Amino acid sequence: MKEPVGFIGLGNMGMGMAGNLLKAGFPVIGFDVRKDAREKFREMGGQAAGSLLEVAQKTRVSVLVVLNFAQIEEVVFGKQGLKEGLRSGDILIVSSTIAPSQVRSLGEKLQAQGVQVLDAPISGGKEGAEAGTLSIMAGGKKEAYEKCLPLLQAMGKNIYYMGGLGNGLSLKLVNNLLVAVNNLAVAEAVSLGTRAGVDPKIILEVIPKSAGDSWMFRNRAYRMVDRDFACRGELDILVKDLGYVLEMAKSVKQPLVLTTLAREIYQMASNLGHGKEDDSAVVKAVETMAGIK
Amino acid sequence: MKEPVGFIGLGNMGMGMAGNLLKAGFPVIGFDVRKDAREKFREMGGQAAGSLLEVAQKTRVSVLVVLNFAQIEEVVFGKQGLKEGLRSGDILIVSSTIAPSQVRSLGEKLQAQGVQVLDAPISGGKEGAEAGTLSIMAGGKKEAYEKCLPLLQAMGKNIYYMGGLGNGLSLKLVNNLLVAVNNLAVAEAVSLGTRAGVDPKIILEVIPKSAGDSWMFRNRAYRMVDRDFACRGELDILVKDLGYVLEMAKSVKQPLVLTTLAREIYQMASNLGHGKEDDSAVVKAVETMAGIK
Repeated sequence: MKEPVGFIGLGNMGMGMAGNLLKAGFPVIGFDVRKDAREKFREMGGQAAGSLLEVAQKTRVSVLVVLNFAQIEEVVFGKQGLKEGLRSGDILIVSSTIAPSQVRSLGEKLQAQGVQVLDAPISGGKEGAEAGTLSIMAGGKKEAYEKCLPLLQAMGKNIYYMGGLGNGLSLKLVNNLLVAVNNLAVAEAVSLGTRAGVDPKIILEVIPKSAGDSWMFRNRAYRMVDRDFACRGELDILVKDLGYVLEMAKSVKQPLVLTTLAREIYQMASNLGHGKEDDSAVVKAVETMAGIK
Repeated sequence: MKEPVGFIGLGNMGMGMAGNLLKAGFPVIGFDVRKDAREKFREMGGQAAGSLLEVAQKTRVSVLVVLNFAQIEEVVFGKQGLKEGLRSGDILIVSSTIAPSQVRSLGEKLQAQGVQVLDAPISGGKEGAEAGTLSIMAGGKKEAYEKCLPLLQAMGKNIYYMGGLGNGLSLKLVNNLLVAVNNLAVAEAVSLGTRAGVDPKIILEVIPKSAGDSWMFRNRAYRMVDRDFACRGELDILVKDLGYVLEMAKSVKQPLVLTTLAREIYQMASNLGHGKEDDSAVVKAVETMAGIK
Protein backbone atom coordinates (compact mmCIF):
# COMPACT_ATOMS: atom_id res chain seq x y z
CA MET A 1 0.00 0.00 0.00
CA LYS A 2 1.52 3.31 -1.13
CA GLU A 3 1.47 6.36 1.12
CA PRO A 4 -1.12 9.04 0.29
CA VAL A 5 0.03 12.16 -1.59
CA GLY A 6 -1.43 15.64 -1.30
CA PHE A 7 -2.00 17.63 -4.47
CA ILE A 8 -2.76 21.37 -4.51
CA GLY A 9 -3.80 22.99 -7.78
CA LEU A 10 -5.83 20.83 -10.18
CA GLY A 11 -5.53 23.02 -13.26
CA ASN A 12 -4.22 22.37 -16.78
CA MET A 13 -1.00 20.83 -15.52
CA GLY A 14 -1.99 19.62 -12.07
CA MET A 15 -4.95 17.53 -13.15
CA GLY A 16 -2.84 15.46 -15.53
CA MET A 17 -0.04 15.04 -12.99
CA ALA A 18 -2.40 14.03 -10.19
CA GLY A 19 -4.07 11.59 -12.61
CA ASN A 20 -0.74 9.91 -13.25
CA LEU A 21 -0.10 9.58 -9.51
CA LEU A 22 -3.47 7.82 -9.22
CA LYS A 23 -2.60 5.54 -12.16
CA ALA A 24 0.67 4.63 -10.44
CA GLY A 25 -1.31 3.51 -7.40
CA PHE A 26 -0.85 6.46 -5.03
CA PRO A 27 -3.92 7.48 -3.04
CA VAL A 28 -4.16 11.23 -3.86
CA ILE A 29 -5.84 13.82 -1.64
CA GLY A 30 -6.41 16.78 -3.95
CA PHE A 31 -7.45 20.37 -3.42
CA ASP A 32 -8.43 23.21 -5.71
CA VAL A 33 -10.42 26.35 -4.98
CA ARG A 34 -12.63 25.60 -7.98
CA LYS A 35 -15.49 23.24 -7.22
CA ASP A 36 -15.65 21.83 -10.78
CA ALA A 37 -11.97 20.87 -10.61
CA ARG A 38 -12.59 19.02 -7.33
CA GLU A 39 -15.53 17.17 -8.86
CA LYS A 40 -13.58 16.22 -11.98
CA PHE A 41 -10.82 14.95 -9.70
CA ARG A 42 -13.28 12.80 -7.76
CA GLU A 43 -14.53 11.28 -11.03
CA MET A 44 -10.92 10.38 -11.84
CA GLY A 45 -10.72 8.37 -8.65
CA GLY A 46 -9.07 10.96 -6.43
CA GLN A 47 -10.15 12.08 -2.99
CA ALA A 48 -11.03 15.79 -2.90
CA ALA A 49 -10.28 17.47 0.41
CA GLY A 50 -12.51 20.13 1.94
CA SER A 51 -9.58 22.30 3.00
CA LEU A 52 -5.83 22.69 2.70
CA LEU A 53 -5.52 21.85 6.37
CA GLU A 54 -7.16 18.49 5.66
CA VAL A 55 -4.59 17.77 2.91
CA ALA A 56 -1.74 18.47 5.32
CA GLN A 57 -3.28 16.35 8.05
CA LYS A 58 -3.90 13.33 5.82
CA THR A 59 -0.54 13.23 3.98
CA ARG A 60 3.21 13.53 4.59
CA VAL A 61 4.11 14.71 1.07
CA SER A 62 2.25 17.29 -1.02
CA VAL A 63 2.76 18.58 -4.55
CA LEU A 64 1.94 22.26 -5.27
CA VAL A 65 1.11 23.30 -8.81
CA VAL A 66 -0.46 26.73 -8.35
CA LEU A 67 0.07 29.80 -10.53
CA ASN A 68 2.58 31.98 -8.71
CA PHE A 69 4.37 32.74 -5.44
CA ALA A 70 1.48 34.78 -4.04
CA GLN A 71 -0.75 31.70 -4.34
CA ILE A 72 1.91 29.50 -2.73
CA GLU A 73 2.11 31.85 0.24
CA GLU A 74 -1.67 31.82 0.53
CA VAL A 75 -1.78 28.00 0.30
CA VAL A 76 0.91 27.51 2.95
CA PHE A 77 0.54 30.44 5.35
CA GLY A 78 -3.10 31.48 4.79
CA LYS A 79 -5.92 30.78 7.21
CA GLN A 80 -6.59 27.00 7.41
CA GLY A 81 -3.50 26.70 5.22
CA LEU A 82 -1.10 23.77 4.95
CA LYS A 83 1.22 25.12 7.63
CA GLU A 84 -1.30 24.56 10.40
CA GLY A 85 -1.26 20.84 9.67
CA LEU A 86 2.35 20.20 8.68
CA ARG A 87 4.52 18.06 10.98
CA SER A 88 8.24 17.50 11.23
CA GLY A 89 9.43 15.27 8.37
CA ASP A 90 6.72 16.38 5.96
CA ILE A 91 7.81 17.36 2.43
CA LEU A 92 6.38 20.03 0.12
CA ILE A 93 7.16 19.65 -3.59
CA VAL A 94 6.80 23.01 -5.35
CA SER A 95 6.23 22.52 -9.08
CA SER A 96 5.04 26.06 -9.82
CA THR A 97 7.42 28.30 -11.76
CA ILE A 98 8.58 30.99 -9.34
CA ALA A 99 11.95 32.61 -8.56
CA PRO A 100 14.65 30.42 -6.94
CA SER A 101 15.00 32.99 -4.14
CA GLN A 102 11.30 32.61 -3.37
CA VAL A 103 11.36 28.84 -2.96
CA ARG A 104 14.49 29.23 -0.82
CA SER A 105 12.73 31.69 1.47
CA LEU A 106 9.81 29.24 1.72
CA GLY A 107 12.26 26.49 2.66
CA GLU A 108 13.82 28.67 5.36
CA LYS A 109 10.46 29.59 6.84
CA LEU A 110 9.38 25.95 7.13
CA GLN A 111 12.74 24.65 8.39
CA ALA A 112 11.98 25.54 12.02
CA GLN A 113 8.98 23.23 11.80
CA GLY A 114 11.13 20.40 10.38
CA VAL A 115 9.38 20.55 7.01
CA GLN A 116 11.47 19.95 3.86
CA VAL A 117 10.87 21.79 0.59
CA LEU A 118 11.84 20.58 -2.88
CA ASP A 119 11.53 22.69 -6.01
CA ALA A 120 10.51 20.50 -8.93
CA PRO A 121 9.46 22.70 -11.85
CA ILE A 122 8.05 20.96 -14.86
CA SER A 123 8.40 21.26 -18.62
CA GLY A 124 6.36 19.65 -21.35
CA GLY A 125 2.96 21.34 -21.34
CA LYS A 126 -0.52 19.98 -20.76
CA GLU A 127 0.14 17.07 -23.14
CA GLY A 128 3.24 16.04 -21.21
CA ALA A 129 1.38 16.34 -17.89
CA GLU A 130 -1.37 14.02 -19.15
CA ALA A 131 0.98 11.54 -20.80
CA GLY A 132 3.36 11.48 -17.83
CA THR A 133 6.26 12.53 -20.06
CA LEU A 134 7.18 15.78 -18.29
CA SER A 135 10.76 16.85 -17.70
CA ILE A 136 11.21 17.59 -14.00
CA MET A 137 14.20 19.51 -12.64
CA ALA A 138 14.41 19.03 -8.90
CA GLY A 139 16.39 20.86 -6.23
CA GLY A 140 16.62 20.41 -2.46
CA LYS A 141 18.11 18.02 0.09
CA LYS A 142 19.21 14.79 -1.58
CA GLU A 143 17.46 12.64 1.03
CA ALA A 144 14.10 14.34 0.50
CA TYR A 145 14.58 14.08 -3.26
CA GLU A 146 15.22 10.35 -3.11
CA LYS A 147 12.18 9.82 -0.90
CA CYS A 148 10.03 11.61 -3.51
CA LEU A 149 11.63 10.08 -6.60
CA PRO A 150 8.90 7.42 -7.12
CA LEU A 151 6.30 10.24 -7.18
CA LEU A 152 8.33 12.31 -9.62
CA GLN A 153 8.81 9.26 -11.82
CA ALA A 154 5.07 8.66 -11.86
CA MET A 155 4.53 12.20 -13.19
CA GLY A 156 7.50 12.66 -15.52
CA LYS A 157 9.92 10.91 -17.84
CA ASN A 158 13.20 12.84 -17.55
CA ILE A 159 13.93 13.58 -13.90
CA TYR A 160 17.03 15.69 -13.14
CA TYR A 161 18.51 16.23 -9.69
CA MET A 162 20.02 19.70 -9.72
CA GLY A 163 21.47 20.00 -6.22
CA GLY A 164 20.36 22.50 -3.58
CA LEU A 165 16.92 24.06 -3.19
CA GLY A 166 16.12 26.51 -6.00
CA ASN A 167 18.48 24.97 -8.56
CA GLY A 168 15.64 23.24 -10.39
CA LEU A 169 13.95 26.59 -10.81
CA SER A 170 17.19 28.19 -11.94
CA LEU A 171 17.41 25.76 -14.85
CA LYS A 172 13.70 26.06 -15.59
CA LEU A 173 14.01 29.84 -15.81
CA VAL A 174 17.11 29.57 -18.04
CA ASN A 175 14.90 27.48 -20.33
CA ASN A 176 12.01 29.93 -20.18
CA LEU A 177 14.30 32.87 -20.95
CA LEU A 178 15.20 31.05 -24.18
CA VAL A 179 11.55 30.19 -24.88
CA ALA A 180 10.44 33.80 -24.52
CA VAL A 181 13.29 35.46 -26.44
CA ASN A 182 13.31 32.85 -29.22
CA ASN A 183 9.53 33.23 -29.60
CA LEU A 184 9.80 37.01 -29.90
CA ALA A 185 12.64 36.62 -32.41
CA VAL A 186 10.30 34.40 -34.45
CA ALA A 187 7.64 37.12 -34.29
CA GLU A 188 10.03 39.81 -35.54
CA ALA A 189 11.43 37.51 -38.24
CA VAL A 190 8.06 36.33 -39.58
CA SER A 191 6.62 39.83 -39.47
CA LEU A 192 9.63 41.36 -41.26
CA GLY A 193 9.82 38.65 -43.91
CA THR A 194 6.11 38.80 -44.69
CA ARG A 195 6.11 42.59 -44.87
CA ALA A 196 9.12 42.50 -47.19
CA GLY A 197 7.22 40.27 -49.60
CA VAL A 198 8.61 36.82 -48.83
CA ASP A 199 6.02 34.05 -49.17
CA PRO A 200 5.36 32.96 -45.54
CA LYS A 201 5.07 29.35 -46.70
CA ILE A 202 8.69 29.49 -47.86
CA ILE A 203 9.75 30.96 -44.50
CA LEU A 204 8.02 28.03 -42.75
CA GLU A 205 9.75 25.58 -45.09
CA VAL A 206 13.31 26.92 -45.19
CA ILE A 207 14.06 28.15 -41.65
CA PRO A 208 13.65 24.72 -39.95
CA LYS A 209 16.46 23.50 -42.24
CA SER A 210 18.65 26.54 -41.46
CA ALA A 211 20.72 27.92 -38.60
CA GLY A 212 17.81 30.18 -37.60
CA ASP A 213 15.82 27.14 -36.46
CA SER A 214 14.50 26.75 -32.93
CA TRP A 215 11.96 24.64 -31.08
CA MET A 216 9.84 27.76 -30.77
CA PHE A 217 10.08 28.45 -34.51
CA ARG A 218 8.83 24.96 -35.31
CA ASN A 219 6.02 25.25 -32.76
CA ARG A 220 4.94 28.90 -33.03
CA ALA A 221 5.81 30.30 -36.48
CA TYR A 222 2.97 28.48 -38.23
CA ARG A 223 0.50 29.76 -35.62
CA MET A 224 1.63 33.32 -36.43
CA VAL A 225 1.33 32.73 -40.18
CA ASP A 226 -2.04 30.93 -39.91
CA ARG A 227 -3.36 33.51 -37.38
CA ASP A 228 -4.17 30.62 -35.04
CA PHE A 229 -3.95 32.14 -31.56
CA ALA A 230 -6.14 29.64 -29.67
CA CYS A 231 -4.42 29.41 -26.31
CA ARG A 232 -2.08 26.44 -25.80
CA GLY A 233 0.51 28.39 -23.79
CA GLU A 234 -0.86 31.61 -22.32
CA LEU A 235 1.03 34.81 -23.13
CA ASP A 236 0.52 36.12 -19.59
CA ILE A 237 2.41 33.07 -18.27
CA LEU A 238 5.48 34.27 -20.17
CA VAL A 239 5.03 37.78 -18.71
CA LYS A 240 5.00 36.18 -15.26
CA ASP A 241 7.91 33.81 -15.97
CA LEU A 242 10.06 36.61 -17.42
CA GLY A 243 9.40 38.53 -14.22
CA TYR A 244 10.83 35.60 -12.26
CA VAL A 245 13.79 35.32 -14.69
CA LEU A 246 14.63 38.98 -14.03
CA GLU A 247 14.09 38.48 -10.29
CA MET A 248 16.59 35.60 -10.44
CA ALA A 249 19.03 37.75 -12.47
CA LYS A 250 18.74 40.59 -9.98
CA SER A 251 19.52 38.27 -7.08
CA VAL A 252 22.92 37.46 -8.67
CA LYS A 253 23.40 41.01 -10.06
CA GLN A 254 23.27 39.81 -13.67
CA PRO A 255 22.03 42.45 -16.13
CA LEU A 256 19.99 40.84 -18.93
CA VAL A 257 19.39 43.64 -21.40
CA LEU A 258 17.87 41.57 -24.21
CA THR A 259 15.61 39.59 -21.89
CA THR A 260 14.54 42.76 -20.08
CA LEU A 261 13.42 44.30 -23.36
CA ALA A 262 11.64 41.07 -24.28
CA ARG A 263 9.66 41.24 -21.03
CA GLU A 264 8.59 44.79 -21.81
CA ILE A 265 7.30 43.73 -25.23
CA TYR A 266 5.35 40.79 -23.77
CA GLN A 267 3.90 43.21 -21.19
CA MET A 268 2.95 45.51 -24.07
CA ALA A 269 1.27 42.58 -25.88
CA SER A 270 -0.65 41.76 -22.71
CA ASN A 271 -1.68 45.40 -22.29
CA LEU A 272 -2.89 45.42 -25.90
CA GLY A 273 -5.36 42.71 -24.85
CA HIS A 274 -3.50 39.55 -25.89
CA GLY A 275 -2.58 38.21 -22.43
CA LYS A 276 -5.06 35.35 -22.46
CA GLU A 277 -4.23 34.34 -26.04
CA ASP A 278 -1.49 31.94 -27.11
CA ASP A 279 2.01 33.30 -26.53
CA SER A 280 2.51 33.33 -30.31
CA ALA A 281 0.16 36.35 -30.25
CA VAL A 282 3.16 38.46 -29.23
CA VAL A 283 3.46 38.87 -33.02
CA LYS A 284 0.38 41.12 -32.76
CA ALA A 285 2.32 43.56 -30.59
CA VAL A 286 5.14 43.52 -33.15
CA GLU A 287 2.57 44.23 -35.88
CA THR A 288 0.86 46.99 -33.89
CA MET A 289 4.24 48.70 -33.42
CA ALA A 290 4.75 48.30 -37.17
CA GLY A 291 1.42 49.98 -37.92
CA ILE A 292 -0.02 46.78 -39.42
CA LYS A 293 -3.74 46.27 -38.81
CA MET B 1 31.77 21.73 -73.39
CA LYS B 2 30.31 23.87 -70.60
CA GLU B 3 30.43 27.66 -70.78
CA PRO B 4 33.06 29.37 -68.62
CA VAL B 5 31.95 30.95 -65.32
CA GLY B 6 33.49 33.99 -63.65
CA PHE B 7 34.08 33.87 -59.92
CA ILE B 8 34.90 36.95 -57.81
CA GLY B 9 35.96 36.46 -54.20
CA LEU B 10 37.94 33.31 -53.41
CA GLY B 11 37.67 33.43 -49.63
CA ASN B 12 36.34 30.97 -47.06
CA MET B 13 33.08 30.44 -48.92
CA GLY B 14 34.05 31.32 -52.48
CA MET B 15 36.98 28.92 -52.75
CA GLY B 16 34.81 25.92 -51.91
CA MET B 17 32.01 27.03 -54.23
CA ALA B 18 34.38 27.70 -57.15
CA GLY B 19 35.98 24.33 -56.50
CA ASN B 20 32.61 22.62 -56.85
CA LEU B 21 31.98 24.41 -60.16
CA LEU B 22 35.32 23.05 -61.38
CA LYS B 23 34.40 19.54 -60.22
CA ALA B 24 31.11 19.80 -62.12
CA GLY B 25 33.08 20.51 -65.30
CA PHE B 26 32.70 24.27 -65.62
CA PRO B 27 35.80 26.18 -66.71
CA VAL B 28 36.11 28.84 -63.98
CA ILE B 29 37.86 32.20 -64.41
CA GLY B 30 38.47 33.37 -60.84
CA PHE B 31 39.58 36.63 -59.30
CA ASP B 32 40.61 37.69 -55.83
CA VAL B 33 42.67 40.69 -54.73
CA ARG B 34 44.87 38.35 -52.64
CA LYS B 35 47.68 36.76 -54.62
CA ASP B 36 47.79 33.61 -52.43
CA ALA B 37 44.09 32.97 -53.10
CA ARG B 38 44.68 33.24 -56.84
CA GLU B 39 47.58 30.79 -56.60
CA LYS B 40 45.60 28.30 -54.53
CA PHE B 41 42.81 28.56 -57.10
CA ARG B 42 45.25 27.80 -59.92
CA GLU B 43 46.44 24.71 -58.06
CA MET B 44 42.81 23.57 -57.85
CA GLY B 45 42.58 23.67 -61.63
CA GLY B 46 41.01 27.10 -62.02
CA GLN B 47 42.14 29.91 -64.27
CA ALA B 48 43.08 33.02 -62.30
CA ALA B 49 42.37 36.29 -64.12
CA GLY B 50 44.68 39.29 -63.92
CA SER B 51 41.79 41.74 -63.59
CA LEU B 52 38.04 41.97 -63.11
CA LEU B 53 37.73 43.31 -66.64
CA GLU B 54 39.32 40.10 -67.91
CA VAL B 55 36.71 38.02 -66.01
CA ALA B 56 33.88 40.00 -67.60
CA GLN B 57 35.39 39.69 -71.05
CA LYS B 58 35.94 35.93 -70.87
CA THR B 59 32.57 34.89 -69.36
CA ARG B 60 28.83 35.56 -69.69
CA VAL B 61 27.94 34.61 -66.10
CA SER B 62 29.84 35.58 -62.93
CA VAL B 63 29.33 34.70 -59.27
CA LEU B 64 30.21 37.35 -56.66
CA VAL B 65 31.06 36.24 -53.12
CA VAL B 66 32.71 39.32 -51.63
CA LEU B 67 32.23 40.68 -48.11
CA ASN B 68 29.78 43.56 -48.41
CA PHE B 69 28.01 46.02 -50.69
CA ALA B 70 30.95 48.46 -50.77
CA GLN B 71 33.11 45.67 -52.23
CA ILE B 72 30.41 44.78 -54.77
CA GLU B 73 30.28 48.40 -55.93
CA GLU B 74 34.07 48.45 -56.22
CA VAL B 75 34.09 45.16 -58.14
CA VAL B 76 31.40 46.25 -60.59
CA PHE B 77 31.86 50.00 -60.97
CA GLY B 78 35.51 50.52 -59.97
CA LYS B 79 38.34 51.20 -62.42
CA GLN B 80 38.93 48.15 -64.65
CA GLY B 81 35.81 46.73 -62.96
CA LEU B 82 33.35 44.20 -64.36
CA LYS B 83 31.09 46.86 -65.83
CA GLU B 84 33.61 47.86 -68.45
CA GLY B 85 33.51 44.36 -69.91
CA LEU B 86 29.86 43.36 -69.42
CA ARG B 87 27.67 42.90 -72.51
CA SER B 88 23.92 42.62 -73.00
CA GLY B 89 22.69 39.22 -71.86
CA ASP B 90 25.39 38.75 -69.23
CA ILE B 91 24.31 37.65 -65.74
CA LEU B 92 25.76 38.55 -62.34
CA ILE B 93 24.95 36.20 -59.45
CA VAL B 94 25.37 38.03 -56.14
CA SER B 95 25.93 35.54 -53.30
CA SER B 96 27.18 38.07 -50.73
CA THR B 97 24.84 38.89 -47.85
CA ILE B 98 23.75 42.51 -48.38
CA ALA B 99 20.41 44.33 -48.13
CA PRO B 100 17.67 43.47 -50.66
CA SER B 101 17.39 47.17 -51.57
CA GLN B 102 21.10 47.21 -52.45
CA VAL B 103 20.95 44.28 -54.87
CA ARG B 104 17.85 45.86 -56.41
CA SER B 105 19.69 49.14 -56.99
CA LEU B 106 22.55 47.18 -58.56
CA GLY B 107 20.04 45.45 -60.85
CA GLU B 108 18.55 48.81 -61.89
CA LYS B 109 21.93 50.33 -62.64
CA LEU B 110 22.94 47.42 -64.90
CA GLN B 111 19.56 47.10 -66.64
CA ALA B 112 20.36 49.83 -69.20
CA GLN B 113 23.31 47.73 -70.29
CA GLY B 114 21.11 44.63 -70.67
CA VAL B 115 22.82 42.86 -67.78
CA GLN B 116 20.70 40.66 -65.47
CA VAL B 117 21.32 40.38 -61.74
CA LEU B 118 20.31 37.46 -59.51
CA ASP B 119 20.64 37.48 -55.72
CA ALA B 120 21.61 34.03 -54.50
CA PRO B 121 22.69 34.24 -50.86
CA ILE B 122 24.03 31.08 -49.32
CA SER B 123 23.67 29.26 -46.03
CA GLY B 124 25.69 26.36 -44.66
CA GLY B 125 29.12 27.73 -43.79
CA LYS B 126 32.57 26.85 -45.04
CA GLU B 127 31.85 23.11 -44.67
CA GLY B 128 28.74 23.38 -46.83
CA ALA B 129 30.60 25.44 -49.43
CA GLU B 130 33.29 22.76 -49.68
CA ALA B 131 30.90 19.82 -49.67
CA GLY B 132 28.52 21.46 -52.16
CA THR B 133 25.64 21.15 -49.70
CA LEU B 134 24.78 24.85 -49.35
CA SER B 135 21.24 26.14 -49.22
CA ILE B 136 20.83 28.82 -51.89
CA MET B 137 17.87 31.22 -51.94
CA ALA B 138 17.68 32.90 -55.33
CA GLY B 139 15.75 35.95 -56.53
CA GLY B 140 15.55 37.66 -59.92
CA LYS B 141 14.02 37.10 -63.36
CA LYS B 142 12.84 33.50 -63.75
CA GLU B 143 14.56 33.12 -67.12
CA ALA B 144 17.95 34.19 -65.77
CA TYR B 145 17.44 31.90 -62.76
CA GLU B 146 16.72 28.89 -64.95
CA LYS B 147 19.76 29.60 -67.08
CA CYS B 148 21.93 29.61 -63.95
CA LEU B 149 20.30 26.66 -62.20
CA PRO B 150 22.97 24.12 -63.26
CA LEU B 151 25.62 26.38 -61.68
CA LEU B 152 23.62 26.80 -58.48
CA GLN B 153 23.06 23.03 -58.33
CA ALA B 154 26.79 22.46 -58.66
CA MET B 155 27.39 24.66 -55.59
CA GLY B 156 24.42 23.81 -53.38
CA LYS B 157 21.96 21.10 -52.40
CA ASN B 158 18.73 22.93 -51.55
CA ILE B 159 18.02 25.59 -54.17
CA TYR B 160 14.96 27.82 -53.61
CA TYR B 161 13.53 30.20 -56.19
CA MET B 162 12.08 33.11 -54.25
CA GLY B 163 10.66 35.33 -56.99
CA GLY B 164 11.82 38.85 -57.81
CA LEU B 165 15.30 40.30 -57.29
CA GLY B 166 16.14 40.76 -53.60
CA ASN B 167 13.74 38.11 -52.30
CA GLY B 168 16.52 35.59 -51.74
CA LEU B 169 18.28 38.13 -49.53
CA SER B 170 15.06 38.90 -47.68
CA LEU B 171 14.78 35.27 -46.60
CA LYS B 172 18.50 35.04 -45.83
CA LEU B 173 18.24 38.08 -43.55
CA VAL B 174 15.13 36.68 -41.83
CA ASN B 175 17.28 33.63 -41.06
CA ASN B 176 20.24 35.72 -39.87
CA LEU B 177 17.99 37.79 -37.59
CA LEU B 178 17.03 34.52 -35.89
CA VAL B 179 20.65 33.34 -35.79
CA ALA B 180 21.84 36.53 -34.12
CA VAL B 181 19.02 36.92 -31.60
CA ASN B 182 18.92 33.22 -30.69
CA ASN B 183 22.71 33.25 -30.18
CA LEU B 184 22.51 36.25 -27.86
CA ALA B 185 19.66 34.61 -25.96
CA VAL B 186 21.93 31.58 -25.49
CA ALA B 187 24.66 33.88 -24.15
CA GLU B 188 22.31 35.51 -21.61
CA ALA B 189 20.84 32.14 -20.60
CA VAL B 190 24.17 30.34 -20.16
CA SER B 191 25.70 33.29 -18.33
CA LEU B 192 22.72 33.65 -15.98
CA GLY B 193 22.45 29.95 -15.26
CA THR B 194 26.15 29.56 -14.54
CA ARG B 195 26.22 32.62 -12.31
CA ALA B 196 23.21 31.33 -10.41
CA GLY B 197 25.06 28.11 -9.62
CA VAL B 198 23.59 25.68 -12.16
CA ASP B 199 26.11 23.12 -13.41
CA PRO B 200 26.77 24.20 -17.04
CA LYS B 201 26.98 20.52 -18.07
CA ILE B 202 23.36 20.09 -16.99
CA ILE B 203 22.34 23.18 -18.97
CA LEU B 204 24.01 21.67 -22.05
CA GLU B 205 22.22 18.38 -21.44
CA VAL B 206 18.70 19.51 -20.60
CA ILE B 207 17.99 22.50 -22.88
CA PRO B 208 18.33 20.57 -26.18
CA LYS B 209 15.49 18.34 -24.93
CA SER B 210 13.38 21.35 -23.91
CA ALA B 211 11.34 24.13 -25.51
CA GLY B 212 14.31 26.50 -25.14
CA ASP B 213 16.24 24.53 -27.75
CA SER B 214 17.57 26.13 -30.93
CA TRP B 215 20.07 25.32 -33.66
CA MET B 216 22.27 28.06 -32.22
CA PHE B 217 22.02 26.57 -28.70
CA ARG B 218 23.19 23.18 -29.95
CA ASN B 219 26.03 24.77 -31.94
CA ARG B 220 27.18 27.64 -29.73
CA ALA B 221 26.31 26.95 -26.06
CA TYR B 222 29.10 24.39 -25.63
CA ARG B 223 31.62 26.84 -27.10
CA MET B 224 30.57 29.41 -24.47
CA VAL B 225 30.81 26.83 -21.67
CA ASP B 226 34.15 25.42 -22.91
CA ARG B 227 35.55 28.93 -23.62
CA ASP B 228 36.32 27.78 -27.15
CA PHE B 229 36.16 30.97 -29.24
CA ALA B 230 38.31 29.87 -32.20
CA CYS B 231 36.60 31.55 -35.14
CA ARG B 232 34.20 29.40 -37.15
CA GLY B 233 31.67 32.20 -37.77
CA GLU B 234 33.11 35.67 -37.23
CA LEU B 235 31.29 37.93 -34.79
CA ASP B 236 31.85 40.97 -37.04
CA ILE B 237 29.91 39.19 -39.79
CA LEU B 238 26.86 39.21 -37.53
CA VAL B 239 27.39 42.93 -36.84
CA LYS B 240 27.41 43.49 -40.60
CA ASP B 241 24.44 41.17 -41.29
CA LEU B 242 22.35 42.77 -38.53
CA GLY B 243 23.07 46.13 -40.15
CA TYR B 244 21.57 44.77 -43.38
CA VAL B 245 18.60 43.26 -41.49
CA LEU B 246 17.84 46.70 -40.03
CA GLU B 247 18.40 48.33 -43.44
CA MET B 248 15.84 45.90 -44.86
CA ALA B 249 13.44 46.62 -41.98
CA LYS B 250 13.81 50.37 -42.50
CA SER B 251 12.99 50.05 -46.18
CA VAL B 252 9.57 48.57 -45.28
CA LYS B 253 9.15 50.78 -42.18
CA GLN B 254 9.23 47.78 -39.82
CA PRO B 255 10.51 48.60 -36.32
CA LEU B 256 12.49 45.69 -34.86
CA VAL B 257 13.14 46.66 -31.28
CA LEU B 258 14.59 43.35 -30.06
CA THR B 259 16.83 42.91 -33.11
CA THR B 260 17.97 46.54 -32.89
CA LEU B 261 19.10 46.00 -29.31
CA ALA B 262 20.82 42.75 -30.32
CA ARG B 263 22.82 44.64 -32.97
CA GLU B 264 23.96 47.15 -30.36
CA ILE B 265 25.20 44.36 -28.09
CA TYR B 266 27.09 42.68 -30.94
CA GLN B 267 28.62 46.07 -31.78
CA MET B 268 29.60 46.39 -28.11
CA ALA B 269 31.21 42.92 -28.20
CA SER B 270 33.13 43.94 -31.33
CA ASN B 271 34.25 47.19 -29.68
CA LEU B 272 35.44 45.19 -26.68
CA GLY B 273 37.84 43.45 -29.06
CA HIS B 274 35.91 40.27 -29.90
CA GLY B 275 34.98 41.08 -33.52
CA LYS B 276 37.41 38.61 -35.08
CA GLU B 277 36.52 35.82 -32.64
CA ASP B 278 33.72 33.31 -33.06
CA ASP B 279 30.25 34.83 -32.77
CA SER B 280 29.72 32.78 -29.59
CA ALA B 281 32.15 35.29 -28.00
CA VAL B 282 29.20 37.67 -27.65
CA VAL B 283 28.89 35.94 -24.26
CA LYS B 284 32.01 37.90 -23.28
CA ALA B 285 30.14 41.18 -23.74
CA VAL B 286 27.31 39.82 -21.60
CA GLU B 287 29.87 38.84 -18.95
CA THR B 288 31.66 42.19 -19.11
CA MET B 289 28.32 43.96 -18.54
CA ALA B 290 27.78 41.59 -15.61
CA GLY B 291 31.15 42.50 -14.09
CA ILE B 292 32.50 38.97 -14.61
CA LYS B 293 36.22 38.84 -15.43
